[in-house]
Amino acid sequence: MFYLHAIIGNMLKIGILGGGQLGRMLLQAAANYPVITHVLENNPECPAAHLCHRFTLGDIRNFDDVYQFGKGLDGISIEIESVNVDALEKLESEGVRVYPSPSALRIIRDKILQKQFYKENDIPTAPFHITQNREDLKKHNEFLPAVHKIGSGGYDGRGVQLLYDRKDLDNGFDTPSVLERKVNIHKEISQIIAINRKGETALYPAVEMIFDPVLNQLDYQLSPAEIPQQSLWRIEAIALKVVKDLKTPGIFAVELFIDKNGDILVNETAPRVHNSGHHTIEASYSSQFDMLWRVMLDYPLGNPKQIVPAAMINLVGSKGHSGEAIYEGLDDILKLENAFLHLYGKKETRPGRKMGHVTILSTDKSDLVYKSKTIKQKLRITSKQPD
Amino acid sequence: MFYLHAIIGNMLKIGILGGGQLGRMLLQAAANYPVITHVLENNPECPAAHLCHRFTLGDIRNFDDVYQFGKGLDGISIEIESVNVDALEKLESEGVRVYPSPSALRIIRDKILQKQFYKENDIPTAPFHITQNREDLKKHNEFLPAVHKIGSGGYDGRGVQLLYDRKDLDNGFDTPSVLERKVNIHKEISQIIAINRKGETALYPAVEMIFDPVLNQLDYQLSPAEIPQQSLWRIEAIALKVVKDLKTPGIFAVELFIDKNGDILVNETAPRVHNSGHHTIEASYSSQFDMLWRVMLDYPLGNPKQIVPAAMINLVGSKGHSGEAIYEGLDDILKLENAFLHLYGKKETRPGRKMGHVTILSTDKSDLVYKSKTIKQKLRITSKQPD
Repeated sequence: MFYLHAIIGNMLKIGILGGGQLGRMLLQAAANYPVITHVLENNPECPAAHLCHRFTLGDIRNFDDVYQFGKGLDGISIEIESVNVDALEKLESEGVRVYPSPSALRIIRDKILQKQFYKENDIPTAPFHITQNREDLKKHNEFLPAVHKIGSGGYDGRGVQLLYDRKDLDNGFDTPSVLERKVNIHKEISQIIAINRKGETALYPAVEMIFDPVLNQLDYQLSPAEIPQQSLWRIEAIALKVVKDLKTPGIFAVELFIDKNGDILVNETAPRVHNSGHHTIEASYSSQFDMLWRVMLDYPLGNPKQIVPAAMINLVGSKGHSGEAIYEGLDDILKLENAFLHLYGKKETRPGRKMGHVTILSTDKSDLVYKSKTIKQKLRITSKQPD
Repeated sequence: MFYLHAIIGNMLKIGILGGGQLGRMLLQAAANYPVITHVLENNPECPAAHLCHRFTLGDIRNFDDVYQFGKGLDGISIEIESVNVDALEKLESEGVRVYPSPSALRIIRDKILQKQFYKENDIPTAPFHITQNREDLKKHNEFLPAVHKIGSGGYDGRGVQLLYDRKDLDNGFDTPSVLERKVNIHKEISQIIAINRKGETALYPAVEMIFDPVLNQLDYQLSPAEIPQQSLWRIEAIALKVVKDLKTPGIFAVELFIDKNGDILVNETAPRVHNSGHHTIEASYSSQFDMLWRVMLDYPLGNPKQIVPAAMINLVGSKGHSGEAIYEGLDDILKLENAFLHLYGKKETRPGRKMGHVTILSTDKSDLVYKSKTIKQKLRITSKQPD
């Protein structure tokens, strides 16, 4: 039997579009405050479904679903960019506070508009061309090697490809896209930053993505990033400019490159809580999730300072396994001193699917690195029947 | 509209009897693991109701309610002692794992049985007599000053009174009770300890209750406690003996006195997560809530070590105010560096009602004390209409 959890007193009602792990961790943090939480998602088994006061089954891309969900809420936020922005715009016009604002979301969710936004606002970013179709793309042979990104509809690695030479142009996207000169990357950095309705900001220590030089894939994240103070200042100044120019309260992950010349270029911006900020749950006084609630509830911004240096490792589904998740080596991780496990409660694993993460705290960098490697080696997320 | 959050795959189903702040924080921690959570409570607006997979409206003191709730679960725990133990016993006999075991719960929830348990197991505790009624009590005039505690039914300060002299005996409880010699208290300590089904234990650093010498009431809690190493060892040995003799897995707060002679005496034991362990959320690698999930999910025990010294302050309803809660001075607390706010989302405040808590982390004790005082001064939980 189910009971209506009555709407409690004068608490604000805040909705989240999307019910994945970001929503789950937002709701864990929400329980520190008096707030009524709502989630819209088309999967009733999603990681966030059971942690809100009201779960609504629906499509975050559908106008009516989003509008009906948002009507009567005090505020609404997202955990993914691919939502119905028209509905958010209508809700905003009717007085619902939207984090981030629909106008900022429109810029960010379209990679063409996002690049143009950086250019117009003198925010450093790699040189680029807009390509309307494959024919158009072929004019830019001299611009290679470059990254080709679909303007809208791409997400999380899909809709992005590297074009090295002329013959790759035949496989370029035949739809409006950005062709961005390939950056000679020295380091990849994420700068998480919150901005409230008064325009006050809180900057987290920059996070560094460490890549495995052999596998050429993300190995772990390190925070604070190991970069010169001068670069940190420049990164903070750029991130501040990005969020001020977007003119919306919210929380943002500004992803940047430091190139081999030491120049700093914005790669892209996520207008929401972000994978690169998971370590802030244990490592910072106010986590990225706590910080967004403070923004949405009109509380003072929290303290983004880090208590202890941290590493963070995503736990992803092992290759060759799909189906009901089995966690191998979990005991080894649960026994590790200064490791914090977060599993997202997803029923099914798939190769590469984000199933959880581990944060490690230590003042000793070699300890962070050693434990990150250990965790990556020992934990496997499999299924009964290999694919 | 409400949707059934389908029972997910092979996850364990664990129920909690009671839906207050302890349940709320247990459920915040549960979301780090793949587990299906159930709550039984007779108030659908309780702090934990919306954070579980399944909420059941019912009376935790009622046999049928508890039995029906627990049938089909893999495990069940409590956040308050006043539950129907007969139902738990039947559930246990049918294979549901109960934390703590009903037999241990029977001992602890009756202060007479609890005191006899300490005596029989050579666990140091203040001398006592059992009094069956007021006539019986009057035989123990020579034993005063003493504390008179009702055997069963008392909770959280109710059913306990101090008897100083002969004339106080007329107001003693006229029901089976414990008459315990008043301890000349030097310090009050809480030792949180977990024990799993294999008998492995994890001991948190001891916590010290700091009393206001003027108001003579709990001011704040400090962890680690400031006591000699020899006392700490003795406290740990006693706490270990308590949980081993109770012969049940679970988590326990063993509350002890250090008297003015330096002797250590057990005051009482709570067989569950406890107010004195709230700081472990931020201050320890594995919080008391995380630890209980590890016990119940058969994971390895967590690391109870403290990352940073901590103070914890309960936020209670201000005197003279009942009704819909208003938080005054919240901004001052939310701005404090290294303070972590937890509000329990209770709709109504009452004088002395626990509405939230704040944990402060600092390596500097004067900082912990200063901020504890600041928080107690600045925060008031009031209602629109004073009583």
